[in-house]
Amino acid sequence: MRHFLTLKDFSKDEILDIINLAKDIKKETKQKIYTPYLNEQTLAMIFEKSSTRTRVSFEVGIHQLGGKGLFLSSRDIQLGRGEPVKDTARVLGRMVDMIMARVYKQSDLEELAKFSGVPVINGLSDDFHPVQLMADLLTLSELGLNLETMKVAYVGDGNNMTNSWLMAASKLGFELRVATPKAYAVPNWVLDIALENAKISGAKIIISNDPKEAIKDADVVTTDTWVSMGQEDEKEKRVKDFAGYCVDDEMMSLANSGAKFLHCLPAYRGYEVSESVFEAHSDEIFSEAENRLHAQKAVMVWCDRKRYE
Amino acid sequence: MRHFLTLKDFSKDEILDIINLAKDIKKETKQKIYTPYLNEQTLAMIFEKSSTRTRVSFEVGIHQLGGKGLFLSSRDIQLGRGEPVKDTARVLGRMVDMIMARVYKQSDLEELAKFSGVPVINGLSDDFHPVQLMADLLTLSELGLNLETMKVAYVGDGNNMTNSWLMAASKLGFELRVATPKAYAVPNWVLDIALENAKISGAKIIISNDPKEAIKDADVVTTDTWVSMGQEDEKEKRVKDFAGYCVDDEMMSLANSGAKFLHCLPAYRGYEVSESVFEAHSDEIFSEAENRLHAQKAVMVWCDRKRYE
Amino acid sequence: MRHFLTLKDFSKDEILDIINLAKDIKKETKQKIYTPYLNEQTLAMIFEKSSTRTRVSFEVGIHQLGGKGLFLSSRDIQLGRGEPVKDTARVLGRMVDMIMARVYKQSDLEELAKFSGVPVINGLSDDFHPVQLMADLLTLSELGLNLETMKVAYVGDGNNMTNSWLMAASKLGFELRVATPKAYAVPNWVLDIALENAKISGAKIIISNDPKEAIKDADVVTTDTWVSMGQEDEKEKRVKDFAGYCVDDEMMSLANSGAKFLHCLPAYRGYEVSESVFEAHSDEIFSEAENRLHAQKAVMVWCDRKRYE
Repeated sequence: MRHFLTLKDFSKDEILDIINLAKDIKKETKQKIYTPYLNEQTLAMIFEKSSTRTRVSFEVGIHQLGGKGLFLSSRDIQLGRGEPVKDTARVLGRMVDMIMARVYKQSDLEELAKFSGVPVINGLSDDFHPVQLMADLLTLSELGLNLETMKVAYVGDGNNMTNSWLMAASKLGFELRVATPKAYAVPNWVLDIALENAKISGAKIIISNDPKEAIKDADVVTTDTWVSMGQEDEKEKRVKDFAGYCVDDEMMSLANSGAKFLHCLPAYRGYEVSESVFEAHSDEIFSEAENRLHAQKAVMVWCDRKRYE
Repeated sequence: MRHFLTLKDFSKDEILDIINLAKDIKKETKQKIYTPYLNEQTLAMIFEKSSTRTRVSFEVGIHQLGGKGLFLSSRDIQLGRGEPVKDTARVLGRMVDMIMARVYKQSDLEELAKFSGVPVINGLSDDFHPVQLMADLLTLSELGLNLETMKVAYVGDGNNMTNSWLMAASKLGFELRVATPKAYAVPNWVLDIALENAKISGAKIIISNDPKEAIKDADVVTTDTWVSMGQEDEKEKRVKDFAGYCVDDEMMSLANSGAKFLHCLPAYRGYEVSESVFEAHSDEIFSEAENRLHAQKAVMVWCDRKRYE
Repeated sequence: MRHFLTLKDFSKDEILDIINLAKDIKKETKQKIYTPYLNEQTLAMIFEKSSTRTRVSFEVGIHQLGGKGLFLSSRDIQLGRGEPVKDTARVLGRMVDMIMARVYKQSDLEELAKFSGVPVINGLSDDFHPVQLMADLLTLSELGLNLETMKVAYVGDGNNMTNSWLMAASKLGFELRVATPKAYAVPNWVLDIALENAKISGAKIIISNDPKEAIKDADVVTTDTWVSMGQEDEKEKRVKDFAGYCVDDEMMSLANSGAKFLHCLPAYRGYEVSESVFEAHSDEIFSEAENRLHAQKAVMVWCDRKRYE
């Protein structure tokens, strides 16, 4: 049985297999063909934090696969409060076929995976956001980029998205330039894993505090909000610390001609991205959002296929 | 593509077509025939305010049509907070086939309609409640009333229900008497539209502050709560202002013999309606509630049929 | 039409019939056969208190039966607030095929049953928890116990679980020993019903304040949390009052060799049960949890079959 907790646990071939599966399933969906790959299966969807995109994409996705999603908000289920996570895991594992969880702690996902007896998918944690990366990679592949040779620039906050890009690049072999303010760097333990992976894949990983240098000649530029949910009281400080990191037209002009821009949303215009850049690239951005649906369907089908291997 | 945001946007024939479609679909449902008119389709159901009736009727409705409803409460999605409505619209439009929203501002519905690329249905806004009116018209038609010649009296608060009755009457041509206290009159912009429509339909629209005069010889009497959600702190004042507006047996005796009484619920006995009138007409009232289900199924099917026109 | 509000309303044969039906349906489910016994039916699931197990088991259950569950939390529906329960009952009864409710007051269930016109199932009330008992009985039967001759010891708080065990024993005829601290005894009205039932079934009902005496030679030991939801501020007092009631290895050694231990969860180690006893019996406990799903599917199918009798 395989879980989907972080790209760290996946080989290059496995990641590419899932991307290809996503393309196949998306093609069917666009033709209004809904093969019941997960017929009669049930997916528990645990949300410690609320999220429209994650919620809608997983609930629509499992439905289109012939199954049923159960939305469990933090008002309906409280991981580790009232009862140990291992008890919740064992109860859910007896009743449902798969678990998706959007949690704070990666360790809660690991506990669910250890005790539930069913595949567990990371819908977003403080450390990683692997399903978003699968959507991003799918989008870039559809846009004609080569996932092994492209140059990607991530500029902004060193967060779970940054960590996930580091895993993706270091597994697939593409060049990743990460520029963050010094105080918002990616943690060393993540960087160490990425550099270790890169020895095998040949990925070039460049860490800096210079967004312009990162974006120069990039094929893809991406960023994320500077103020995530729960950090609202740090907003003023953060906005100051991220001065010079807004992806605006001038910044984008440094990238390769025809460079793509991705954003996992929600986007705050005038902060991490300008209205002009956002709207110029809105097709890419909303295709990326839509691809959450297709990529996650592939992740669920893939996990199901591995269930009895 | 057509949306269902207010009856203002619909012709008499279109309204009657949807009522007839509702009758056909209801007939099938009563025979336990569930034609999958919206097979595999998904409906995002956005609720800025909670509502049992709207929630249950839409979620059961889309299920019976072969599709899937996603319940998004104000805790799961916040229109215009965090991200602009146009971004939420574009994300949802990429993932679902239709959107139903119960909102405060009619302009949020218009924004969803403008940017989502999928049909948007008004589940209730501060201005209009068109799906309730469709249920009411269906109920009255089933009860044998002629939707073009009947006389309807609305007595009580000039609110979204009153506005919606004004749209319905002025489009279909029936006589509508609206009696509200002076301070609770319908807004001029709504009245202006109704009077403009009435020039074509020949509807007689009578606005007054005299509930008894309004009810006299009416075929249908209807009212609504005096204190809607969010107005609880005005309750004492409102109850005083609405003195003389309670639909009780004496009031009903002024209407035509056999006159029907409708109420969109929840009903507060002793305020806008007496227990005696409510229970004497409970069959009509709960048929009206049930018809939310059938009317809304027709609205969804109709919007889907118009999608590619 | 029959409701499922308390085992008090059921004969021994009816209870055993439902257990057998649960076994049949479980067998199909284990073979991934999902007979649509409740094809296209809808179940309103009202939760005045949140509950993961009740929620997941009913929502998965109705889905596997070919129907659709609607999760209505206390934020979405408020029994008896805003409108009388009899109005909510009549609205829901017009739109859905069955109602499950987890409520505070048993009388609210009775009101729903009286006015809705559809079968109503008690998901848990302050007085009774009959679906949990059905899961417990199913589990014990699968474990090889004879439901008419076994000896069961319940030690701990005299609550809705205790009341339900009293109904089950007094109907089926098995021996039940209930040990609670004096201040936490079962109410007299429940005991009176049990003793009346026992005259017919021959059940031996033993009430005491001595947990060791209760457990001696028992075939089954069960308990429940000392501090239920809403009693958190009494926790310190309760923990003191229940001294000597923790089911630990020493306590279990008094029972028959091979005695089973059940717990309806959540379990608080070191309070009503020790970690050692809990984990030694975790297979029984999590089978019991899983059996909520199977037992409740049987209850729903049974109620549906009785609908037009």
